[in-house]
Amino acid sequence: MPLPAPQSYAPGTFQPLTFHDAVPRFRDGSDTPRAYLERCLETIAELEPQVMAFAHRNEAGAREAADASTARYKAGGALSAIDGMPIGIKDLIETRDMPTEMGSAFYKGNSPGRDSALVQALRAAGAVVLGKMVTTELGMSHPGPTRNPFDLRRTPGGSSSGSGAAIGARMLPAAVGTQVLGSVIRPASFNANWALKPTQGGINRGERQGYSQSTVGIHAGSAEDMWSVAIEIVKRVGGDPGAPGLYWTGDDLPPAFKPRRLAVLETEGWAFAEPAAKAAFEKALDALNGQGVTILRRGDHPLLETLEQRILGAMELARDVCAYESAWSVANMMAKNPDALSDSLKARFELGCSITLPEYRGRLLQREEMRLAQAALAGEVDGFIGLPACGPAPLPGDTGGSSNRIVHTTGNPIMNTASSALGCPVVTVPVMAVDGMPLGLSVTTQPHQDERAAAIGRWIADAIPPIIV
Amino acid sequence: MPLPAPQSYAPGTFQPLTFHDAVPRFRDGSDTPRAYLERCLETIAELEPQVMAFAHRNEAGAREAADASTARYKAGGALSAIDGMPIGIKDLIETRDMPTEMGSAFYKGNSPGRDSALVQALRAAGAVVLGKMVTTELGMSHPGPTRNPFDLRRTPGGSSSGSGAAIGARMLPAAVGTQVLGSVIRPASFNANWALKPTQGGINRGERQGYSQSTVGIHAGSAEDMWSVAIEIVKRVGGDPGAPGLYWTGDDLPPAFKPRRLAVLETEGWAFAEPAAKAAFEKALDALNGQGVTILRRGDHPLLETLEQRILGAMELARDVCAYESAWSVANMMAKNPDALSDSLKARFELGCSITLPEYRGRLLQREEMRLAQAALAGEVDGFIGLPACGPAPLPGDTGGSSNRIVHTTGNPIMNTASSALGCPVVTVPVMAVDGMPLGLSVTTQPHQDERAAAIGRWIADAIPPIIV
Repeated sequence: MPLPAPQSYAPGTFQPLTFHDAVPRFRDGSDTPRAYLERCLETIAELEPQVMAFAHRNEAGAREAADASTARYKAGGALSAIDGMPIGIKDLIETRDMPTEMGSAFYKGNSPGRDSALVQALRAAGAVVLGKMVTTELGMSHPGPTRNPFDLRRTPGGSSSGSGAAIGARMLPAAVGTQVLGSVIRPASFNANWALKPTQGGINRGERQGYSQSTVGIHAGSAEDMWSVAIEIVKRVGGDPGAPGLYWTGDDLPPAFKPRRLAVLETEGWAFAEPAAKAAFEKALDALNGQGVTILRRGDHPLLETLEQRILGAMELARDVCAYESAWSVANMMAKNPDALSDSLKARFELGCSITLPEYRGRLLQREEMRLAQAALAGEVDGFIGLPACGPAPLPGDTGGSSNRIVHTTGNPIMNTASSALGCPVVTVPVMAVDGMPLGLSVTTQPHQDERAAAIGRWIADAIPPIIV
Repeated sequence: MPLPAPQSYAPGTFQPLTFHDAVPRFRDGSDTPRAYLERCLETIAELEPQVMAFAHRNEAGAREAADASTARYKAGGALSAIDGMPIGIKDLIETRDMPTEMGSAFYKGNSPGRDSALVQALRAAGAVVLGKMVTTELGMSHPGPTRNPFDLRRTPGGSSSGSGAAIGARMLPAAVGTQVLGSVIRPASFNANWALKPTQGGINRGERQGYSQSTVGIHAGSAEDMWSVAIEIVKRVGGDPGAPGLYWTGDDLPPAFKPRRLAVLETEGWAFAEPAAKAAFEKALDALNGQGVTILRRGDHPLLETLEQRILGAMELARDVCAYESAWSVANMMAKNPDALSDSLKARFELGCSITLPEYRGRLLQREEMRLAQAALAGEVDGFIGLPACGPAPLPGDTGGSSNRIVHTTGNPIMNTASSALGCPVVTVPVMAVDGMPLGLSVTTQPHQDERAAAIGRWIADAIPPIIV
């Protein structure tokens, strides 16, 4: 199946690749994980030269894993809901059978021969780890080669570029990403993915514990697969050290939950949102309202206005916090091979070196204030709704109006920096299109209400019609 | 200078190696950092064959750094209070110029060519990074070759074996250790060190973020050097990601602080404490009381009794938490080269694999309850006093009466597991001797009161006579 014509995306019409609905056929023998994998590999063979979502693939290893899964289904002993699921792993995360090059010339050929915690969990659950997905340089600004499957001229977003694009291109039913600023929620929006950016610490980051605000995230073609991947990981390896890990109360996607009150979370990104994206969002709000959901806007409740005020500056906060926290690590790279680092990474390093400990403490205080302001709304609304990006995936050279120091070659993360700082769950729900390109809705809840965010997202996807602007 | 005769240690008589008091002579030109280093190297040449505290040394690099420091003093531009200080780094922590073998056959020859955050900070402060200090296998139970300089038959403690022994042997004025259960405070006690185990997150752990209860710690011959090393690191690279880092209000060791009320913290270790150690401790309490300090025992205050009840089981808690948190990492080692792992590490891995997420969450809850019980005493006492070990460094084969599953070839950490779980600061104060071997006092305060712990420790060292039993 070729790529769709550029800018021809329409929610409701687009059929993403799903896995959960294939499982009954694995059980009755009318399909097998091996055949499912082969279909993925066919799509990849056809589309990957244009999309360039993969940094590496281990097709032989994947076929072996798929055969083992096929045998388990035959024997009636599937390991989990994701047994046999082909999956991609963002190339920041270690896999024992493939290099981990992190989108960086510095890590060219880096093959530690280890499986990160979540990769171990996925294998233990029977998933078929097929490849490493392209990331921007170290998950930061400098882009990789990946292109947007809905319009190859456009960015797939970043830093989880390959993870988002592979789902959009129907190459895979699910892929693992990571987010520090907006690296899961934004590419998910650009590529018509479902995605979960969990509560801070909710999914074990393995060797990647260096940032105080970063998470693993799950990209998928369906809410069901997104949720299953998340909980099958957490069951086996938990969350980050000291964190309780994602909460869930049953093995399936939680039932749809109709919220009574949702608050619009504008964030400082609102000022950069494109008019067409805002128009689509207003249509979505109208549809929700038509279903009986009360929508609160920032003028409607003083605590919501307080939250919006507090989260102003979340982009600058994230920039400073991450630059400070990574400075010692980048210093090692600078000492060893500065030529292998991009100018944007070097600029970030300089920033990190210039931030003092009292300034960093000031940022932590600011972040705590943001979190308190969100907590204050826990009794007022069931969750928050917003735009996961300023608009659809931008064309090259479009900076989304940003004037700050971050290079936006993968689109502006400014709609996501607030929820990243808040450490709360966000789900991207792929229900809108602008100019024939995907645009999601973001559902945000209080920390540890990941299940609630997924349940509201599921309800929205069922309850409102596709929004096309 | 040869090693002292075995079991001839006496506090007050023993003269540890100090650095802070050499600095005025560096300034007036009557001594130099290079000459100071050469004196250390002479001691090392003489004693290291017996003590075996070092895993590696870079003497050429140290001489170069000492010369650069000498030039800075000559030019009147010393970088910090520790400019020119020879220092050792526990071999769990990465250094760009020496291997990092972690006391493990698995990591034989491991040379990542990176400086951990704190090593960068030490170099930036002008310190002379001389060597890597022996650790037990991965900082866990299986011992290294190091011997106790006060009696070569005895253990130096662990896991910071080399760091503790090098200070006791007067080879170095300071060394960096790490603690998960009791790996700083216990070896410090065995080797007549001052040591600081800071508030959880207080000193940047760099690449070692895998445990929710582990800290970097500082071993030194004097309180002054201990404190300077800690704050000169934190000034430059802060604490762990998301932590505010150690608090300090001035560049020198804080002035001695005479507490009005100290509570005895028995911990579950009390049941294992040796009679002579208890006798020495009672003498210390009498001396404190004689100085006007009110000593609270567990029967004296219901909140103290509550705390003692809550911290029972801290050893088992630490064992489970650490086994769970490290299981995925050890799994990689098991997959690659199981023969390079000790039986005790393998047993710990099996334990880690057997712990479920709900069980882990139960441990986190238990730990929070411990912390709340400590916080409840914040208004009742200025701090806590206790034994940092069950007695002096044990002879081989002496398990300190322990019947649990941890092998105690480096002594029993059971006096330290409570404060490790509490995440609060502890200072070892070397003021006692039992059977001619060192025994410290431990001063524990509320989290973030590291400065207070050091100030109380300093006051105790000045105010009470050496305790010899």
